Amino acid sequence: MPDYAQIEQEFLNEQRSLNAYDQALSLLGWDARTGAPRKGVEERSEVVGALAAELFARKTSGHLKDMSQHLLEPEAAEQVSAVARRAAEETLVDVERMERLPRNEYQAFTTLTSKTESYWEEAKASGDFESFRPYLEEIVAYQRRFADYLGYEAHPYDALLHDFEPGMTVSTLDDTFSKLRDGLLPLVEQVKAAPARPDTSFLHAHVPKDRQRAFSEHVLRQMTYDFDAGRLDEAVHPFAVGLNHNDVRVTTKYDEHDFRTAVFGTIHEGGHALYEQNLGTDLAGTILADGASMGIHESQSLFWENFVARTRSFWENNYGKLQELSGGQFQHVALDDFYFAVNSVEPSLIRIEADEMTYSLHIILRYELEKALIEGSLQVKDLPEAWNEKMKQYLGVLPSNHAEGVLQDVHWAGGAFGYFPSYALGYIYAAQFQQAIVRDLPAFDDLVASGDLAPIRHWLTERVHQHGRMKRPAEIVTAATGEGTNPEPLLAHLSHKYQSLYRWS
Amino acid sequence: MPDYAQIEQEFLNEQRSLNAYDQALSLLGWDARTGAPRKGVEERSEVVGALAAELFARKTSGHLKDMSQHLLEPEAAEQVSAVARRAAEETLVDVERMERLPRNEYQAFTTLTSKTESYWEEAKASGDFESFRPYLEEIVAYQRRFADYLGYEAHPYDALLHDFEPGMTVSTLDDTFSKLRDGLLPLVEQVKAAPARPDTSFLHAHVPKDRQRAFSEHVLRQMTYDFDAGRLDEAVHPFAVGLNHNDVRVTTKYDEHDFRTAVFGTIHEGGHALYEQNLGTDLAGTILADGASMGIHESQSLFWENFVARTRSFWENNYGKLQELSGGQFQHVALDDFYFAVNSVEPSLIRIEADEMTYSLHIILRYELEKALIEGSLQVKDLPEAWNEKMKQYLGVLPSNHAEGVLQDVHWAGGAFGYFPSYALGYIYAAQFQQAIVRDLPAFDDLVASGDLAPIRHWLTERVHQHGRMKRPAEIVTAATGEGTNPEPLLAHLSHKYQSLYRWS
Repeated sequence: MPDYAQIEQEFLNEQRSLNAYDQALSLLGWDARTGAPRKGVEERSEVVGALAAELFARKTSGHLKDMSQHLLEPEAAEQVSAVARRAAEETLVDVERMERLPRNEYQAFTTLTSKTESYWEEAKASGDFESFRPYLEEIVAYQRRFADYLGYEAHPYDALLHDFEPGMTVSTLDDTFSKLRDGLLPLVEQVKAAPARPDTSFLHAHVPKDRQRAFSEHVLRQMTYDFDAGRLDEAVHPFAVGLNHNDVRVTTKYDEHDFRTAVFGTIHEGGHALYEQNLGTDLAGTILADGASMGIHESQSLFWENFVARTRSFWENNYGKLQELSGGQFQHVALDDFYFAVNSVEPSLIRIEADEMTYSLHIILRYELEKALIEGSLQVKDLPEAWNEKMKQYLGVLPSNHAEGVLQDVHWAGGAFGYFPSYALGYIYAAQFQQAIVRDLPAFDDLVASGDLAPIRHWLTERVHQHGRMKRPAEIVTAATGEGTNPEPLLAHLSHKYQSLYRWS
Repeated sequence: MPDYAQIEQEFLNEQRSLNAYDQALSLLGWDARTGAPRKGVEERSEVVGALAAELFARKTSGHLKDMSQHLLEPEAAEQVSAVARRAAEETLVDVERMERLPRNEYQAFTTLTSKTESYWEEAKASGDFESFRPYLEEIVAYQRRFADYLGYEAHPYDALLHDFEPGMTVSTLDDTFSKLRDGLLPLVEQVKAAPARPDTSFLHAHVPKDRQRAFSEHVLRQMTYDFDAGRLDEAVHPFAVGLNHNDVRVTTKYDEHDFRTAVFGTIHEGGHALYEQNLGTDLAGTILADGASMGIHESQSLFWENFVARTRSFWENNYGKLQELSGGQFQHVALDDFYFAVNSVEPSLIRIEADEMTYSLHIILRYELEKALIEGSLQVKDLPEAWNEKMKQYLGVLPSNHAEGVLQDVHWAGGAFGYFPSYALGYIYAAQFQQAIVRDLPAFDDLVASGDLAPIRHWLTERVHQHGRMKRPAEIVTAATGEGTNPEPLLAHLSHKYQSLYRWS
C-alpha cells in the first residue's frame, strides 16, 4: 500500500508551490490594471506567458495527476485529510481538462490575452471595433478549438462554462434564463407605465474624488472588510482580486459627477473581497482557497450591492455620512427621495451601470451572442450588428458608438467566454440567500439600519465563504437555502420592491 | 562541431524565461514596499521563496552552464553574437557562484529576508534593536557561511562584494576609502570653522504633499524620465526598480515640513531610473539588461542629485517653479540664499538625509562595521555600541535611539552585506563623470540653467546606460573618463564648491 501520509505531504507542498505561481500571476494582473506603465505591455505579457507556461507544465507533468489519483483511492480515505482529498478531486478535474489543451496553444493564448486587454482599452477609447476585430477573431477561434479539445455532449459552449460554473449547461441556462426573461420583461413594462418617477437630477451633483474615497473606505469598514489584509485602488474597470486570504484587493472608479459609480461599485467589489478574506484558513495554499464558482462569487458581490446597499435601511444609516462627506450636497433631498433615486429603473446601454431590474437582460443578451459565436452561427464581423439588434429588442435602446455597445466589457478581450452567465446566476443565488438570511435573522433590516453588518457577514461566511471549493456550487445553494437554483425569489424581490417604489397597482 | 546558432537561440530563450522570473520578483518587491497589505507578509514571502527557488534550480540545473560554456568556446566566436557571448560569460560567473551555495540554505535565506524587512520596519518604528537582533544574527550567520561557500583569497568580505561591485576587494576599498576619509575630515573641519553660515529656517516651511508631487513630476520630466515607461509612487524607504526598460518605477517620500526629502530623493531615484530606461534594447531579456554594478548605478543617481540638482544653475531654472508650486512659500528668499541653504553641511545622524560632504563618512562607518561582522571581530549584540562609537568619531554626533542609529537602513534587514561601499564608490565615479562631461560639453552649466538636460542624459546614455553589463565597471569608468577609480575629482569638487559657499580662505 502506498504511503498515503507521505503522498499527502508532497501533494500539499506542490499545491502551495502552484499557488505561489497563481499569486504572482494575480499580482501581475492587478498591477496591469491599476497603473502599470503603458509601454511595458509587451514585456509584461512575456512574463505572464512564462509563468503561466511553467504552471501549465507542472500541472500537466503527470506527477500531480498521479498524486491526486493515489489520494482518491478508497484505501486512502482513512489516512488522508478531507481537504487533501477534495483538493485532489478538484485538481484531477482541472488537470484532465488542461491535458486536453495543447501546451503551445495554451501558452500562445495566454500571451495573446495578456496583450489584448490593452488593445481593447485603446479600441474602446476611440470606439473603433474594426481595430480590435482581428484580436477578437483570434480569441474566438481559440475558444472554439478549446471547446473541441475539452469535449462536450450537447453544445460546445458547455465545455467553456465549466471554468466559471462547474456543471452548468446550455440546456439549463436556456431554461433558467428564459424564465427570468419572461418574468423581467413585464416588470420593465410596469415600470415604464408606472405613475411614479424618481427625481434623479441631484445624482449628478459634484462630489470630489477624495470625499468619495473616504465614503468608500467607510462603507468597506462597515462591511467588515479588513484593510490590514487588503487595499483600495482605482481602476478603469473595477475588480477585486485575492492573492490569498490575507491580501485581498479592491479597486473602484470615481466619477465626480455620479457618486453611485464608486459607492455601489466599491460595495460590489467589497462583496467579492469578503468572500476571499473569509475563506477557511485550512484551505490556504490549496486549489480550494477560491470561490466555489463565479456565480457563487457574484452572488456575494450582488448580495451586498443590492440586498444591503440598495435598501432603505442601509441609507437610513449611511445617508447622513454621505451628506456630511459630500459637503452638504444632498441637504435638501429627503431620504425617501434619495432611496427612490438610487433605485431608479431605466433601460440603458451600459451593463455595469444598469439597475438591478434590467441588469440580467444585459447578461442574457451576451449569453446568446457568446453561444452563437462559439457554435459558429455568428461571425465576429457580424457581432456589432447582432449586439445592436438585441439591445433594441431586450432593452429598447441603441448604442450610438461601439464604446457604449459591443466594446463595453473587458471579458471577451481577456478571453473569458462562458463568464457572463455567472452574473445572472449571481443575481438568482443572491436573492435565494437573502430569503434564507431573513428566515435565520429576522432582524435583518434592523441590523442594516444600525450599521451592524457583522452578523450578516458571519451568516455568509458560515454558509458560503469558509467552504471555498470544498463544496460544489449546488451543494452550497441547497445547504444554505433548502432548494436548488431558482429564479423565483429574485423575481419576487424585484416585483415587491419596485411595485412599492413605482407604485403600480 | 556543435550547432552554435542553435545553442545561442536556446540560450537566449532561457535567458528570457529567467528574466521573466526576475521581473515577477521585482514586481513582488515593488509591491511589498509600496502598500501591500500588512497581514500578507508571510504568504508573500512564500511566493517569493517559491519563485526564487525555481529560478535558482534552473540556473543551477547544469543546462544553462553547459550552454554558456559552449558559447564561450573559441570556435563559437565567429558564429555567436557579442551579446550572447558576453551574456554567457556573465551567466557562467553567476552560475558558478550559485552552485557553491546549498540550495536549501539559499531558499531559506530568501524566505527569511522577504520577512525581515517587515520585522525591521516594526523594530525601527519602536526603536527596539533587541526585537530585531535575532533576525540580524541569523542574516549575518548566513552571510558568513555564504562567504565561506563562495570562497575568497584575502578576506571573507571580498566574497560578498562581488554581487555589488565585481572585482572590488577589501584591500582596494581600505586604500580608496582611507584617501577619501583623509580628504574629507579636514574639509568638514573647514566648514565647521568657516565664517559663513546658511539660513536654513525656511527649509521647514509647510509644502503640501500634492504640490511636492507635482514638482517631483516636473523635475523627472525635465530629466527626460519617460512616464509612459514608469510611474511615481510613495515608499517609506524610497527606491527605483526596473522590471524592464519599458517599466522602470520610481518611489519617493514626502515630508510636508522638508521639501528637500522629496525633491532630492526623487531626483536621486530618477537618476537610477534613467539608467534602466536607457539600457540598450539589444540587451533586453538577457542578464546584461542591468546596471554594470551597484557603484556605477549609484554614480548615476548621485550625478543627477549632486552635480545637476544641487547646482546653482539648476535652481536658476527651477526655483521659480518651486516657489509657484509651493504657493509663494519662498518668495522672500533670494536664489543665492536658497542655493546655500540646500547645500548646507551639517554632520548628522541619518545617512539618507546627509549632505554630499559628510555622506561618504556614513558609508565608511558602515563598511567598517560590515567588514568586522563578516570577519567575526564584531558580534551583532555589540553592533549598536560600535555604531554609536564610530558616529561620534567620524561625525561627532550620537543617536538618541536606535531608529536614528543602527536601525536606520533597510540593507542589512534585506540581507545586502557588501552593498554599502557602492554608495561611496558612486560618489567617486559621479565626480569623475562630471569632470569628463564638462570636458565634452563645456556649456554644461548653461544647459542645466536652461532646463535642457537631454544632451547631458545622452552623454550618460552613450558612455554608461546603454552598455548595461556588456562592459565591466572599470571599463566604463576608464572609457568615459580616461582614468581608473580616483577619489581626487570628488575631493576637488567638494573643496571648490564648499570653499566658495562657506567662504573659507
